Amino acid sequence: MKEVYEIAVVHGDGIGPEVCAATVEVVKAALGPVNPLRFTEYPAGAEHFLKTGQSFPEPTFQACRAADAILHGAGGLPGVVHPDGTEAGLDFTLRLRFELDLYANIRPIRLFEGVPSPLSGVKAGDIDFIILRENSEGLYAARGSGALLRGEVAVDTLVQTRPGIERIVRKAFELARKSSGAPRDGVRRVTCCDKANVLRSYAFFRSVFDEVAKGYPDIATEHALVDAMAMHLVLKPGHFNVIVSENMFGDILSDLAAATVGGMGMAPSAEIGETNGFFQAAHGSAPDIAGKGIANPYGTILSAALMLDWLGHKHGDEKLNRAAGRIRRVTEDCLAGGLLSADLKGSASTHKIAHAVCDRLATVP
Amino acid sequence: MKEVYEIAVVHGDGIGPEVCAATVEVVKAALGPVNPLRFTEYPAGAEHFLKTGQSFPEPTFQACRAADAILHGAGGLPGVVHPDGTEAGLDFTLRLRFELDLYANIRPIRLFEGVPSPLSGVKAGDIDFIILRENSEGLYAARGSGALLRGEVAVDTLVQTRPGIERIVRKAFELARKSSGAPRDGVRRVTCCDKANVLRSYAFFRSVFDEVAKGYPDIATEHALVDAMAMHLVLKPGHFNVIVSENMFGDILSDLAAATVGGMGMAPSAEIGETNGFFQAAHGSAPDIAGKGIANPYGTILSAALMLDWLGHKHGDEKLNRAAGRIRRVTEDCLAGGLLSADLKGSASTHKIAHAVCDRLATVP
Ligand SMILES: CC(C)[C@H](C(=O)O)[C@@H](O)C(=O)O
Ligand SMILES: CC(C)[C@H](C(=O)O)[C@@H](O)C(=O)O
Repeated sequence: MKEVYEIAVVHGDGIGPEVCAATVEVVKAALGPVNPLRFTEYPAGAEHFLKTGQSFPEPTFQACRAADAILHGAGGLPGVVHPDGTEAGLDFTLRLRFELDLYANIRPIRLFEGVPSPLSGVKAGDIDFIILRENSEGLYAARGSGALLRGEVAVDTLVQTRPGIERIVRKAFELARKSSGAPRDGVRRVTCCDKANVLRSYAFFRSVFDEVAKGYPDIATEHALVDAMAMHLVLKPGHFNVIVSENMFGDILSDLAAATVGGMGMAPSAEIGETNGFFQAAHGSAPDIAGKGIANPYGTILSAALMLDWLGHKHGDEKLNRAAGRIRRVTEDCLAGGLLSADLKGSASTHKIAHAVCDRLATVP
Repeated sequence: MKEVYEIAVVHGDGIGPEVCAATVEVVKAALGPVNPLRFTEYPAGAEHFLKTGQSFPEPTFQACRAADAILHGAGGLPGVVHPDGTEAGLDFTLRLRFELDLYANIRPIRLFEGVPSPLSGVKAGDIDFIILRENSEGLYAARGSGALLRGEVAVDTLVQTRPGIERIVRKAFELARKSSGAPRDGVRRVTCCDKANVLRSYAFFRSVFDEVAKGYPDIATEHALVDAMAMHLVLKPGHFNVIVSENMFGDILSDLAAATVGGMGMAPSAEIGETNGFFQAAHGSAPDIAGKGIANPYGTILSAALMLDWLGHKHGDEKLNRAAGRIRRVTEDCLAGGLLSADLKGSASTHKIAHAVCDRLATVP
């Protein structure tokens, strides 16, 4: 338990500032007058890069590393790229992941009441699982180091290591044990998603998964090839509990899964290492709607709830966990009550949603 | 135009023999008494591997290479693996792709009348596009050559080359030009799907795409990141016309897209090089339902229609294209008439479907 938790806040690009500001309001409202969180803003992102030539200033990095947690809006603007063609505004997210070794990317996928799903015949509660994306190796190990030879041959290298796989698979089993959402058939289950039939590194991922699984006899396990998994997420999303996969596959599958529960605006994410925690919605900076006040803040708000939970557990500070629970309940109520942003076919502005959530938090014990 | 076209038929594993035999019947019925196709069966696959130690006998390979076209059921059985953990029963498909340089994997995605979609609010015709999967490089270049060091570090290498990208992108524009299905808004469009924001080889894919696109000013173009694309395929499938992508991404996206139009049983595929053509449904061998006579043969039947079209165009033999058109029309009618297999929530057996298609072919001009 700490008296003050330092939260490094980075607004980033596009709709980042809007959803981030809304979320900070909500967290303050959830914690009330004795709020132990101190929010400090630091610059990073594509706009900062355009202004200063730096996408991720060293002081911002140091502050993030030293902070108790990092809260981010969204980063990146199309066309703002490095010489190799990759986006400058993503340095913030990608460097934090690798330099702070945030190996576990936890992406809860849940269909809330009131939120329309593109899948026919599913209702709130039918979809409730976690995609656990390995966040420190895999194909992303090649980021910034891919080779281009004579403008003719480009090479990126996918690396998977035993310790890297072991720790993410252990995390998957731990999440399955304590997950509140259980799959439709009442079984706690971890699904290993890979491409073991074709590629050696994924066969290795599967074999390490099988070894680690022996230590968790209380949890059911299964394998799914990534192509089949993409299909399953559409055809039987209610089957899953915790899905664990390599970094690139996790990136694709988590967006796909988000599409089934209302889209990227409803997709929170927690990126966690041994020491640091980094929280942001899984969506991008959506420059097309930036500044209009219509961005969906729920993904970032729900990410902040993950932050409070993580801080609470880490520091044995139950009031943070209680605040997280209240944010989740109020969010649920607001969505069920029809407080929907434009992406959810509603008409509530970012501000309106944030204020409604704050007002309601004041009345909920 | 040839008097005889040699078709190498490989039944493979699981449901492969059932759907393959059904399809050969259908093709014969479509061509009638003056059938110029000579079907010859050759062994390959996981069962053959278990019996003989060989997954892809050299005579089968030679016959496939020499044939005018190759027709395959499905390959692979879980657990029948090489020492590196990859599946032996997939050697047939993978070696053909690489050794015959079948660089273009064409996967038409179409929602037929009568076929249930898991997406709400879509109807027949709303979904009608092609996923063009690069089939000769990308992450699959690592197949059989991935490294595992001291049981600790596994590495697979993703390779993308300028000539490899150029030819698949050109193919995408040619397909868009002649595609019958046009997107909802009436625009012919090629979508480049990549992960250019993070990885250099995909940024290279995009830059080569942009260069090649200049040669096709009549076709609209756009970029989509693979994670966003996975979402789009669920949220706005009617937007797309031709989607071109790297091998691994194409594998994932084509299964996902198939899920939206009835599942893997409805997913035909054509794998084409400069010389050879290889035709099989995109589904696996489904050992759980093998031998029960309930497998869905439509995917393989529609793949055979792609084969007839390809042979017809290649050899200027219009009667083959007419037969392809008749198979497609009759298939459409049978589906619309409710002739559905178990995977489509119907009760028609493989045989019943094949016979109905054949009967109807006899009456259609
Ligand atoms: C912004 C980008 C670097 C990122 C990724 O590719 O991982 C995003 O898509 C995500 O899922 O967090
Ligand atoms: C069977 C397997 C080798 C194959 C692949 O991974 O390409 C399959 O999933 C496909 O899509 O054709």
